[in-house]
Amino acid sequence: MQLPHPPVIAAWASAGGKRESAGPLAEGLDLLYEDNRLGQKSWEKAEERLLEETARACMKKASLNPDQIQLALAGDLQAQCTASGYAMRQLEVPFAGLYGACSTMAESLAMAACLSSSGVGDNILAMTTSHFCAAERQFRMPLNYGGMRTPTSQWTATAAGCVLLHPAGQGVQVPSVAFGRVQDLQIKDITNMGAAMAPAAADTLLRYFQDTGKTPADYDVVFTGDLGKVGSELLHELMQQEGVDLTNHQDCGCLLYGDDPTVGAGGSGCGCSAAVLCSHILPALTRGEYHKVLFVATGALMSQPIFLQRESIPGIAHLVELAAPAK
Amino acid sequence: MQLPHPPVIAAWASAGGKRESAGPLAEGLDLLYEDNRLGQKSWEKAEERLLEETARACMKKASLNPDQIQLALAGDLQAQCTASGYAMRQLEVPFAGLYGACSTMAESLAMAACLSSSGVGDNILAMTTSHFCAAERQFRMPLNYGGMRTPTSQWTATAAGCVLLHPAGQGVQVPSVAFGRVQDLQIKDITNMGAAMAPAAADTLLRYFQDTGKTPADYDVVFTGDLGKVGSELLHELMQQEGVDLTNHQDCGCLLYGDDPTVGAGGSGCGCSAAVLCSHILPALTRGEYHKVLFVATGALMSQPIFLQRESIPGIAHLVELAAPAK
Repeated sequence: MQLPHPPVIAAWASAGGKRESAGPLAEGLDLLYEDNRLGQKSWEKAEERLLEETARACMKKASLNPDQIQLALAGDLQAQCTASGYAMRQLEVPFAGLYGACSTMAESLAMAACLSSSGVGDNILAMTTSHFCAAERQFRMPLNYGGMRTPTSQWTATAAGCVLLHPAGQGVQVPSVAFGRVQDLQIKDITNMGAAMAPAAADTLLRYFQDTGKTPADYDVVFTGDLGKVGSELLHELMQQEGVDLTNHQDCGCLLYGDDPTVGAGGSGCGCSAAVLCSHILPALTRGEYHKVLFVATGALMSQPIFLQRESIPGIAHLVELAAPAK
Repeated sequence: MQLPHPPVIAAWASAGGKRESAGPLAEGLDLLYEDNRLGQKSWEKAEERLLEETARACMKKASLNPDQIQLALAGDLQAQCTASGYAMRQLEVPFAGLYGACSTMAESLAMAACLSSSGVGDNILAMTTSHFCAAERQFRMPLNYGGMRTPTSQWTATAAGCVLLHPAGQGVQVPSVAFGRVQDLQIKDITNMGAAMAPAAADTLLRYFQDTGKTPADYDVVFTGDLGKVGSELLHELMQQEGVDLTNHQDCGCLLYGDDPTVGAGGSGCGCSAAVLCSHILPALTRGEYHKVLFVATGALMSQPIFLQRESIPGIAHLVELAAPAK
């Protein structure tokens, strides 16, 4: 979907927990939390708080109050997206909930860009969050079980990101977006999300390049989030099979934690690509270090009951084209 | 949000399970399933199938193939919205997942209307589904436990609805939409969803009437979904406190099952208001029986882990204004 009047990202904010605050992108994060509980009684409440504080930080940067927001789009990994629902109870803004698993940042940004360019609101927020401890309970084992981690597994980021969209004006431009289709290559290993999501990233990228006539060379960087090391290698393979060389590819799951060997194949979770977008990609575009990039967040659309029913894990990837602010 | 170029609902389809097929709206349902399993191995797979078949029926009515759909917006009550995710795997259309609990039909329709009026796509689908047996496992007890039901509890519909939006042309018009704000009056009774959602319906309606200068008398009917009997009474009380008389109010949760005493306070679940919209409201608008109605679907934004953490149940309500096709 080409947006004839590209909306702009006028402000953004990001937050990270203890591990993220020790990572290579810590300097770009607005809020750093040494305590992953954020003073709350449960991991779920901590995640809710993480999103709320990030949204408030974003509004503060733009000198906006919640009553000036026409719509907030938000989603997370908890069952029934409760981190978002309860955070929105605190913010009291008009709210539409989204679910795209780890692709939620690109989904909410793409949706907000379409809505913003159509003129239905001057101030639209798009945001997402994830929390390692809440996500482990949702998808695998409660932490107290002390389960072993496999080398292919990814570390769900305790992080959040929020962006503010204006229909026009100064800011990072969003010239086009693409909503992905669900892809499923019958991966059934719940500790290998990268493999489940790589086909979706490849499908969305290939369709986008075909529809627009563009190639990876038209962009400074093609960012995916969050395939990790395993998924990134698979993506390169899949793209090469179709004759596309992804030499300028970087993955948010690999960027957030750098070479930290304890995170397995890299970061994941909706908060991962959201935090990388808001701590690294948007600042670099604003500084002029990048002129044009693609942001392709990927999600694995499974749940514990469905996994226990032995279903395979489908993936989805949404794409957002970002361009440096007009001079 | 006023839509300057009102999009139209050009086609729709609905489906119901065994109980819904015996209800007063059965005649308007396109697909009736005597077997609530739909031949599948699990309730979750049955719900996925219900949504897929309803979407296919809607596309068939409009003589469209999946590859002519620019975007499908869908959500459901399963953790991580898996009914929608897996149904979309079968349909292979560009897909953005939503979560609004039982408000999802109004949320997806409102979002699709905004996107459609902005011209990003000629054919946009909005849909949702719910399944009694899958929902009981999500929110309360697996059915096998044989838990008792309270008189305030509502019956999650085994039903689905899907609408197709065009930016212009012949069909039911969508002149305006309103996304709700989360409301929480500290209801903690998981068997009384009507009470948790009524304040959200009241808030969205009061804000809408205030912003537009309209009153309930400007509409043939104000439909809410799904407050049931208990929630409907509370809504009338809340509105009367603000001086608004809701004499022309009907609730989708009460309409779907009529006076069936075994459903408790009425129907609920995203599929309830979706099925009533597509089996009763849209046909009546098309036949000219109604000229203008409001469709306000309500959702309770809770989950089992959060409920076990003793949190209260917040509600949300999204509003869609519907007008009879232009002559």
